[in-house]
Amino acid sequence: MKKYIDVYNHYKELIETGQYKNGDKMPSVRKSTEILSVSKTTVQNAYFELQADGYIISQPQSGYYVTYSAKADLTDRKHKNEKAKIKYDLKSGDADSESFDLSLWQRYIKSALRQKERLLSYGDAMGEKDLREALSVYIREKRNVVASPDRIVVGAGVQALLSILCRLTKDRKTVSFPTDNFVQGISLFESNGYEVHTRYKDAEIVYVSPSHMTSYGDVMPIKRRLELIEYSKKNRSMIIEDDFDSDFLYQSKPTPALYALSDGGNVVYMGSFSNVLIPGIRISFMVLTEELARRFAMTKDCFAQTASKTEQIALCGYIRDGHIARQTRKIRRHYTAKTKIMFDEIKRQIPDAKAGISENGLAIKLTAQYFGAAEDFEKHGVLVYIYSIDNNTINMALIPSAIEAEDISMAVNEIKQILSTKKRTMV
Amino acid sequence: MKKYIDVYNHYKELIETGQYKNGDKMPSVRKSTEILSVSKTTVQNAYFELQADGYIISQPQSGYYVTYSAKADLTDRKHKNEKAKIKYDLKSGDADSESFDLSLWQRYIKSALRQKERLLSYGDAMGEKDLREALSVYIREKRNVVASPDRIVVGAGVQALLSILCRLTKDRKTVSFPTDNFVQGISLFESNGYEVHTRYKDAEIVYVSPSHMTSYGDVMPIKRRLELIEYSKKNRSMIIEDDFDSDFLYQSKPTPALYALSDGGNVVYMGSFSNVLIPGIRISFMVLTEELARRFAMTKDCFAQTASKTEQIALCGYIRDGHIARQTRKIRRHYTAKTKIMFDEIKRQIPDAKAGISENGLAIKLTAQYFGAAEDFEKHGVLVYIYSIDNNTINMALIPSAIEAEDISMAVNEIKQILSTKKRTMV
Repeated sequence: MKKYIDVYNHYKELIETGQYKNGDKMPSVRKSTEILSVSKTTVQNAYFELQADGYIISQPQSGYYVTYSAKADLTDRKHKNEKAKIKYDLKSGDADSESFDLSLWQRYIKSALRQKERLLSYGDAMGEKDLREALSVYIREKRNVVASPDRIVVGAGVQALLSILCRLTKDRKTVSFPTDNFVQGISLFESNGYEVHTRYKDAEIVYVSPSHMTSYGDVMPIKRRLELIEYSKKNRSMIIEDDFDSDFLYQSKPTPALYALSDGGNVVYMGSFSNVLIPGIRISFMVLTEELARRFAMTKDCFAQTASKTEQIALCGYIRDGHIARQTRKIRRHYTAKTKIMFDEIKRQIPDAKAGISENGLAIKLTAQYFGAAEDFEKHGVLVYIYSIDNNTINMALIPSAIEAEDISMAVNEIKQILSTKKRTMV
Repeated sequence: MKKYIDVYNHYKELIETGQYKNGDKMPSVRKSTEILSVSKTTVQNAYFELQADGYIISQPQSGYYVTYSAKADLTDRKHKNEKAKIKYDLKSGDADSESFDLSLWQRYIKSALRQKERLLSYGDAMGEKDLREALSVYIREKRNVVASPDRIVVGAGVQALLSILCRLTKDRKTVSFPTDNFVQGISLFESNGYEVHTRYKDAEIVYVSPSHMTSYGDVMPIKRRLELIEYSKKNRSMIIEDDFDSDFLYQSKPTPALYALSDGGNVVYMGSFSNVLIPGIRISFMVLTEELARRFAMTKDCFAQTASKTEQIALCGYIRDGHIARQTRKIRRHYTAKTKIMFDEIKRQIPDAKAGISENGLAIKLTAQYFGAAEDFEKHGVLVYIYSIDNNTINMALIPSAIEAEDISMAVNEIKQILSTKKRTMV
């Protein structure tokens, strides 16, 4: 298919088998073109790959020379094999190909790239002003989160925003996370000198993700939300509300955001677009409290914007024109339908297992008899989130978002095969 | 021009003058369309802006209501006035409109957006593999920095990379910066618990920017580079080499990178593309030492990628096809020519001043007699970098990159006027 791969493999073999030795001069691009009867571009691409993989090196004004490193080759090959093994990804929460209209997004990107003037300067550390205005309207309408644009900060993902936040809240020393799973947040706060706890209600900062409490997709009920607000007010603690996956609450009505319930309480609200658009587009935002917004404004020079300016401009138009709302409805239908298909397939193919759909509609909780080992799933190319294997019983979460609808039946069949392992392969 | 602005101003005035009061219902979009004889879209856009600026709020299924906040309005108006004042930006180092072929970049972005499969998954915390391969080749050819792709980490700007780095080097406690100007780096290390010094040669981590040591664009000579490496080896300290602006060394031959000179020493090399492309595109990278690369690989789950995936894919193609090298040559010619024009204009218009072109060719050092205050420049809409005002003498750096060539003469004239202030406006 790609002919340059053939050229690459041809020379790779010559080098690996020692016919071309370390220090040998490679045939010139023109010469290779003649020998192998391929185009100049094909040879150039192949040489480029060989160079990137450490087989050859270019010497300006002279040509290419062999620099073979056996070790680098092995590492690379191992990596490639590992990658090839995954057949069904029921763990990552990645998107499938139908979930997003990329050509529509492309139109907004093109239009953003026409705004040359704006791209000539460094981005605002807070985020583009018009995007923050659009976000201000969007979160007010969607989640009743009322905040002026000058309290909204944009960044490339939740970790980038937490990185700003934990520099603004240096008067606090302890932070609590619901579990120890969220290593990106935990390691960041630890590095910034915070004492990190899990489920410690007296912590000075409490991070919660009320619409996605576990990989099972559990949602924090309103009663618990009100208690948390009450307690944090009494305790003068700050809540970081990561409203991740709130868009997917389809079984229940969406539960109000802590921010909206707290009515001027000490809540920092965070939202993200990676799950509504596609993971490849990383724009998140947070709503600071008035006090933190003041601190940010005073120390603005200390922070650099991480989110792509082009994508910020594109997202602003995309939101204003109502596409986010439409896209949210679309993927909610799309993903929850896939979860339902998988649920039905499990009922049909593995009737003995106990299965249930998560509250956010994105995951299936599965409990089944199992005599195998956790590793067996990966060995069979199936990625799942395993909670526990005890007394020959496995508890796991399956998130079908990344696989196509027509592959669900086969994926369930593969899981059925793995679960039916009779003898233990490892204790 | 933009009719929705007229509609916006119309209602804004009615609200600000109290003819529409807090809580009043706004005319429906349809009704406004009739009253003002404009299109529905125009009214919708105007309402959107009014909403974003906090004048009105939408109530689903009901309509728009006035929510006028005098305070928010004042802040916003003040902000707009401040922005409007800048006439000549000789400080930011932003790009001008001729510096970059945006339509070429647009082609690479479009091609990246066609790679749908890749955009469906979250990005690699290290950066896209093919981009890291292209970078590996690029820095070897350009700066003799030899490193395999698995030691290269991509991120959205130098601060994002330093944020990773200071979490990987927790065994070190002191860091040194050349001056206290680089607040983004300093505040980050401080927040992560490091003792921060300036010009402390016994620090365990030494950050340097050898091709851009000051806003004057001074370059570290090779002798000093070798001494630094020698000292850091003896001291077992780690050097962070931010190779910022190395592309612009036109007066001298480019000085070799510390990384290349150190020959396996403890140097982390950092590079960036914002200055070669345009500031709106934020992709930087660093080359970790083998030890740090091992640590990163082990704790990879703790880090999230910040750089845009689309832009990473686009940049990879852009580098492979040789455009970075071409673009570097182009802007080097372009910017240094502008500096020369400004230098000649200063000689002509302000013959009494002492002027010199910086080593990197991007800035002009200007020393002149001055009886005014630092603030006077900003008041006249001229942004410059002022080093000192002592004994009626001003020392400053002028960076003409952001202004168009044809405006240089007028900018110099404006500076001449400011410098000729006879009486002190402030002591």
